[in-house]
Amino acid sequence: MSQSIEQVAVQARQAANQLQNVTSSQKSVVLQRIRQKLQEHKEEIFAANAQDLKLAQAEVDKGNLSASLFKRLDIKGPNEEKFNTLLQGVTDVDNLPDPIGQVSRATELDQGLDLYRVSAPVGVILVIFEARPEVVVNISCLAIKSSNAAILKGGKEAFHTLTALTKVMQEALHSVRKEIPFPTNAIQLVATREQISGLLQQDRYIDLVIPRGSNSLVRHIQNNTRIPVLGHADGICSVFLDDTADPNKAPGLVVDAKTNYPAACNSAETLLVHRKLLVPGGVLERTIQNLFDNGVSLRCDAASLDFIRQNPTLNQAGTYREGEQFAASTPEDYDTEFLDLCMAVRVVDSLEDAIDHINTHSSKHTDCIVTETAAHAEKFMNMVDAAGVFWNASTRFADGFRYGFGTEVGVSTNKTHARGPVGLEGLTIYKYRLYGHGHKAGDFGVGAGKKQYSHHPIPLETVQGKFVK
Amino acid sequence: MSQSIEQVAVQARQAANQLQNVTSSQKSVVLQRIRQKLQEHKEEIFAANAQDLKLAQAEVDKGNLSASLFKRLDIKGPNEEKFNTLLQGVTDVDNLPDPIGQVSRATELDQGLDLYRVSAPVGVILVIFEARPEVVVNISCLAIKSSNAAILKGGKEAFHTLTALTKVMQEALHSVRKEIPFPTNAIQLVATREQISGLLQQDRYIDLVIPRGSNSLVRHIQNNTRIPVLGHADGICSVFLDDTADPNKAPGLVVDAKTNYPAACNSAETLLVHRKLLVPGGVLERTIQNLFDNGVSLRCDAASLDFIRQNPTLNQAGTYREGEQFAASTPEDYDTEFLDLCMAVRVVDSLEDAIDHINTHSSKHTDCIVTETAAHAEKFMNMVDAAGVFWNASTRFADGFRYGFGTEVGVSTNKTHARGPVGLEGLTIYKYRLYGHGHKAGDFGVGAGKKQYSHHPIPLETVQGKFVK
Repeated sequence: MSQSIEQVAVQARQAANQLQNVTSSQKSVVLQRIRQKLQEHKEEIFAANAQDLKLAQAEVDKGNLSASLFKRLDIKGPNEEKFNTLLQGVTDVDNLPDPIGQVSRATELDQGLDLYRVSAPVGVILVIFEARPEVVVNISCLAIKSSNAAILKGGKEAFHTLTALTKVMQEALHSVRKEIPFPTNAIQLVATREQISGLLQQDRYIDLVIPRGSNSLVRHIQNNTRIPVLGHADGICSVFLDDTADPNKAPGLVVDAKTNYPAACNSAETLLVHRKLLVPGGVLERTIQNLFDNGVSLRCDAASLDFIRQNPTLNQAGTYREGEQFAASTPEDYDTEFLDLCMAVRVVDSLEDAIDHINTHSSKHTDCIVTETAAHAEKFMNMVDAAGVFWNASTRFADGFRYGFGTEVGVSTNKTHARGPVGLEGLTIYKYRLYGHGHKAGDFGVGAGKKQYSHHPIPLETVQGKFVK
Repeated sequence: MSQSIEQVAVQARQAANQLQNVTSSQKSVVLQRIRQKLQEHKEEIFAANAQDLKLAQAEVDKGNLSASLFKRLDIKGPNEEKFNTLLQGVTDVDNLPDPIGQVSRATELDQGLDLYRVSAPVGVILVIFEARPEVVVNISCLAIKSSNAAILKGGKEAFHTLTALTKVMQEALHSVRKEIPFPTNAIQLVATREQISGLLQQDRYIDLVIPRGSNSLVRHIQNNTRIPVLGHADGICSVFLDDTADPNKAPGLVVDAKTNYPAACNSAETLLVHRKLLVPGGVLERTIQNLFDNGVSLRCDAASLDFIRQNPTLNQAGTYREGEQFAASTPEDYDTEFLDLCMAVRVVDSLEDAIDHINTHSSKHTDCIVTETAAHAEKFMNMVDAAGVFWNASTRFADGFRYGFGTEVGVSTNKTHARGPVGLEGLTIYKYRLYGHGHKAGDFGVGAGKKQYSHHPIPLETVQGKFVK
């Protein structure tokens, strides 16, 4: 077993080496062929998916699988809508600009000695995801577009669908080989958890792991590999209502941040409130009432609990009730990703206390301040150590598509490489390409007859495109 | 002990949080004060250094310490030259552009909803270095310039000097506190290996480890922490003489790559030779003779050994001799960083074989092709998976100062975050700052009354400087 897993890693590395030399148009041929083959083989894919759905239905019936997970397993959708979206996704990736060969720095070091920093693929990526089977196609296309080799592992509930999709994609890779050199091992699928354990040890061959899935999955991977991990375990996002929070902005924004999609990592989990807002009839009352009316229950610290209890609008027997819409919080509530219509509330004395709370409890994902005081917003955005720092905007905007990346590889709470929603750029690194004419370092330095470096910047617009193949 | 080490990490994190809000001019005040205090306290520093030198001399006498290490311990130098260079280094860092607050992406997502990707400090960095005591000042200044908190550990041979230098720098941090808010724990020094073991566990507080030192030090750290590590263990660089290598470029370039500073990580360790060059009187003969004349001994594969043995110029009894200037190689020689006037030689059949050898044996640091065939150079530079891929230029150019970065934090062979010589940029990451007016994600999407994202790029030149504090 461990031998065969090393083989998968070695094959991926060999494919990655070959992929360093593929051209934009070759990648486009491959992506178009993938779309074509998926279209041609859709009935086989639907048949495999039906097998997964049948097995999953049995688990739903036994109470072992949730209805929402079951729904996500379906690859066809009504009128083949989901499948058509998947096909369109392949074309969308094909239409993105090539992330490889982009120059981010260019300097003439000396006459005839030119240095270029040029984007290059990371190499081999291992992507682990849960039960949405279309992810295998999406990630494969992103890997191909960025000239990386990918090893993929999806949720076991999608086993038959994933196998069918990967088989079709590999057939596409095989079918282009007569026309263009493209490694068929650019995409490989593995099926078991044991294989993942083995792959996490292959830091010699694998350059980056991207786990997309539950908190516990991500943590397990972070704790069990030396390979860099791109991702996020928690999404504990906070919204802070500052003393000048606009009553026309705060209620809708907080409700959106909490309820637009509670299971998402960019949903807000904690509401911080400036003490000055503890007045009846104001922005806080309206915000809380809006949350209640949208089905949200609140876990409140002493001050906010007291505020609600004393407030005749928020504490109406028959409408909102302690123990239902609101209750006392525990300390753990401020470190919890509820992923549900539930929110922890805490009253703070100042902007600085809010920043402090966030830097201690939040997960460095996305945090928002609602204020009309620009200086407070700037201080908050400077000092909160998170991938996204928002002023008067819902945390739900933290997303690769909403940011305009055209795609999203994942969301990272790392402090290195890539942070926040990660587009194709996150699958790239750079190389320094130095073009000389027999230049020797010993000719430069201090003293008679020695040369000096010129370090003339080369305008990027004059070289952009030079390295796109 | 582990409590106190956690305290160091917590203090660094608190300092890092405060540093998120410091301005360019505040950082400049601090750097100037550091220079001033070092100047004022130079006699104390020299006295501490004399203690280290005395202890080190005893170790040199006992044969426990090398003369070159002893020399590196000295912080004063003839006419205080080394110390003055150190002071100038502080000013040089002060004069670099502020790496924080730089905008790398700006997009209008909707009317009144603007997204900026802005450079930010990584946070807390742990830097481990060997016996050159001036590194503690250099790294401290780089950390301050990039708004990071640093925990520093140097070689034990420099203990007294490091303690004195750090004390003076901390005094500088204290002395500015009346004028500007600047955390005194921005710089902390730890002294023992045990403390390092403890710190490597503090991934909750420390964001990046930079080990600068021996191969074994770097490997030890890579193997014993979950914190991202920026650096390189090996520097196995190769030069490939292609079949069209220019006889006027190759010999000097190879000699420079090997002998300019053999102990450096960017020195060449392996010479790959195209089989077509195995002809007497050509570029290979001249290259080898030049290497011999510069004191280099070669570890040769069968083909190159045979070439030398048969060559009357290279195999002259009394001048060059088998067992002295040249000998048969072992397989390990191609995976060895000699750090000495020694080089492994291997004959390959093609450009592709050379690329293959390098991708298998080199350490992804810097590799060079010597060729007059542009297509070969491009293929080599595309397919060699290294931080630096050079055409007709010595591997010794792979250096932050030579690249024009103004400074060098270290050299990285990572495939993520920062690769190759790393300047101040390597100590930064970015944040997404989103400026809204109460925007809600639920207002966007498909269907009646829903808004669409505009995704208008905002020209960077119109916003550059907006976030530099």
